[in-house]
Amino acid sequence: MTMKHPPLKPFDEALAELLARATPLPGRDTVATWDADGRVLAADAVSPLHVPPQDNSAMDGYALRCADVPAAGTVLRVAQRIAAGSSGQPLQPGTAARIFTGAPVPPGADAVVMQENCEALSGADAGASASVGASDTPDAPALGRVRIHTVPQPGQAIRRAGEDITRGAVVLRAGTRLTPAALGLAASIGMDKLQVVQRPRVALFSTGDELVMPGELPPERMPPGAIYNSNRFFLRALLQRLGCHVTDLGIVPDQREATVAALRTASAQHDLILTSGGVSVGEEDHVKPAVQALGRLDLWQIAIKPGKPFAYGHIDAATQGGTAGGTAGGVAGKSGPTHFIGLPGNPVSSLITFMLLVRPFVLRLQGVADVLPRFIGAAAHFDWRKADQRREFLRVRRNAQGGLELFANQGSGVLTSTVWADGIVDVPPGQPIARGDTVRYLPFAELMA
Amino acid sequence: MTMKHPPLKPFDEALAELLARATPLPGRDTVATWDADGRVLAADAVSPLHVPPQDNSAMDGYALRCADVPAAGTVLRVAQRIAAGSSGQPLQPGTAARIFTGAPVPPGADAVVMQENCEALSGADAGASASVGASDTPDAPALGRVRIHTVPQPGQAIRRAGEDITRGAVVLRAGTRLTPAALGLAASIGMDKLQVVQRPRVALFSTGDELVMPGELPPERMPPGAIYNSNRFFLRALLQRLGCHVTDLGIVPDQREATVAALRTASAQHDLILTSGGVSVGEEDHVKPAVQALGRLDLWQIAIKPGKPFAYGHIDAATQGGTAGGTAGGVAGKSGPTHFIGLPGNPVSSLITFMLLVRPFVLRLQGVADVLPRFIGAAAHFDWRKADQRREFLRVRRNAQGGLELFANQGSGVLTSTVWADGIVDVPPGQPIARGDTVRYLPFAELMA
Repeated sequence: MTMKHPPLKPFDEALAELLARATPLPGRDTVATWDADGRVLAADAVSPLHVPPQDNSAMDGYALRCADVPAAGTVLRVAQRIAAGSSGQPLQPGTAARIFTGAPVPPGADAVVMQENCEALSGADAGASASVGASDTPDAPALGRVRIHTVPQPGQAIRRAGEDITRGAVVLRAGTRLTPAALGLAASIGMDKLQVVQRPRVALFSTGDELVMPGELPPERMPPGAIYNSNRFFLRALLQRLGCHVTDLGIVPDQREATVAALRTASAQHDLILTSGGVSVGEEDHVKPAVQALGRLDLWQIAIKPGKPFAYGHIDAATQGGTAGGTAGGVAGKSGPTHFIGLPGNPVSSLITFMLLVRPFVLRLQGVADVLPRFIGAAAHFDWRKADQRREFLRVRRNAQGGLELFANQGSGVLTSTVWADGIVDVPPGQPIARGDTVRYLPFAELMA
Repeated sequence: MTMKHPPLKPFDEALAELLARATPLPGRDTVATWDADGRVLAADAVSPLHVPPQDNSAMDGYALRCADVPAAGTVLRVAQRIAAGSSGQPLQPGTAARIFTGAPVPPGADAVVMQENCEALSGADAGASASVGASDTPDAPALGRVRIHTVPQPGQAIRRAGEDITRGAVVLRAGTRLTPAALGLAASIGMDKLQVVQRPRVALFSTGDELVMPGELPPERMPPGAIYNSNRFFLRALLQRLGCHVTDLGIVPDQREATVAALRTASAQHDLILTSGGVSVGEEDHVKPAVQALGRLDLWQIAIKPGKPFAYGHIDAATQGGTAGGTAGGVAGKSGPTHFIGLPGNPVSSLITFMLLVRPFVLRLQGVADVLPRFIGAAAHFDWRKADQRREFLRVRRNAQGGLELFANQGSGVLTSTVWADGIVDVPPGQPIARGDTVRYLPFAELMA
């Protein structure tokens, strides 16, 4: 028989098919905001309060009435002192209040003049060494007087109540992946707990009789053809960065029974089984028949470089293994099919397909709406004439000018390129690149996070 | 007295001074490569082997001698079969070896022809269902014959031994912050353990009597002027992402004795004390005298927006607290001064100064050489005419065209901008931006990682 070129599946089609299968997981966890970094919000965060809660000072300075300062050089009596965390008394006409950043503006005041434009004239230093707390005696000679060197405008240096966030506003949408900044925002509206989506449970294994785990054999004792397993190291770290619980099943021997047994056991308590190796056409491989014995598997040839071979399938609920008894709905149990994704064994292909296909899939399992990384238009500081028929992802690095330089060896065998590089350029099929062209750049910091 | 504008310190000067103090920590941990994501290598990783270890096939196909295929259509007997993980026999003239990706090329073969350019003519299917392992019988009729449809070139589809990594090469330098890809690279040369720099131990607290922890009081019971503490939520998460052990000391009351006590206790077992609040000029503040009582503190006014106030200092070893007895050098103990960094209390200012100044400092404590994020030259899809005298960091987000859009409210009071945005633009002092200009963009994915 002649081996034909298999039909290639366009990348966008593969991604869309994959995301169509990634039904968000139903489980919910209530976690402390304090510990929620990286988790995905399961419900909108609605503000129960205005931020800021009341009108407050944007500066260290003096709160006053504009009507009392018709001209630069006006002198006012300092009648009170309002620190952040305290509250003032109504401002009497003709007086000023010493005020600090964040402190509530007293009723009656309509502007704050920053201290750099004021001159404290007498009495004790109105700064940090003065008495603590608001003064509530109308005659407080210790606070002295202040000369105002500018003519204030109404509203000046006052942050209005609700200016940043109004009560009832949605500050974080369900489906938001929480960053440190988002934790701060949730805390700022008083939320000490958040409802988030369960962590995906992922079982991970490699196939390939040529693979040896680092530490098992020293280099000088490696048999011919043996190579160290590297894919599981980065796949596990990437899954963990995405918030997954990862169960490592090691290297499964290239035997059908062993593969079926591993899949059956893993399927019972995992949402996704991820493998690397065994999905190339004609490869020495028991993954495909093993998955098909328990469910379904489609081998895809995706029109990308690197990363062409890829497999998506599932293990049917009925064929899932696990402990005896049919009890469903336990904490660790699950119902429904278990997803199966098979990545190419080649390390660079495995890494690239993880970042471009598995990452969006795993985010979508957690209910993230916006799963696709946005490219940045950046300048190529290299030429690329070897345009491929497939969509290509070149390993590049930013230089000191903010442009992109190309790693010399774009072969898919060596992870060196993915350590040297800080991102990839997404090159459309058949399109050469000339120095100075604006290209579509995706930083690894986003693809590996 | 007239309050003068304090002299502003240029950002680059502040950063350089800070990094000059960040002597790398001396401690070393030996960790499993498996668990080393995010850690910083303490020693070069040198390859003990060639990668690939021997000449191997880059394709699934047939290994042969070019001399045997002078013209397209030549038929060869398939004399052996070499799967990945097995090794072949010397190739006899006039024969081909069925070979799979990654399998060693047999002695005598000088090219591999991909299977898509070959036609298996007879015998059992030479693909996945054929017998496993290399055939060592010269006459193996089951393997049949193959027609080669192209004229091969010497070296074609062969990956050479050491082509990717040569024995003795440094594959990862000391001072590299390990990514998932770097873990894979280390594993690929057989390293199951790595020597990394100790995690920095950081004590974290906030100051400000106006602060209330989320969960302590519901919004309706917040006293006037009180606000929820948000800074510690993002500072802790950011420190953890940077690999730090974080001790949270909560909100320290605005009292000198309490502040001195907190600093003294924390200094004994931490490399860095990080606070937010209490570093603005004239602020109701006991941080400065407390640190100065135990060591030294400099308040800086940095010429950036947001984020002007910033403090750097240290607690002298002699004044550090801790358990009784003068025993030094214990596992949890330390010698030498403890760094102190005070961030502004304003949330956006606190976040920005963390990303731009504390992050490089903490990375340098771990021995990272390259601590400064590289900007990307990207197109502004906005106008910015309000050029400030200070260097300014605008919150922006990429749009579908790969350009940058501006968050409407660039005020420093609201973290909303840092959640909406996906990065910042570094704007030189006094420089307006017109739509279409190339600007210096820094993605949050790097600044928050």
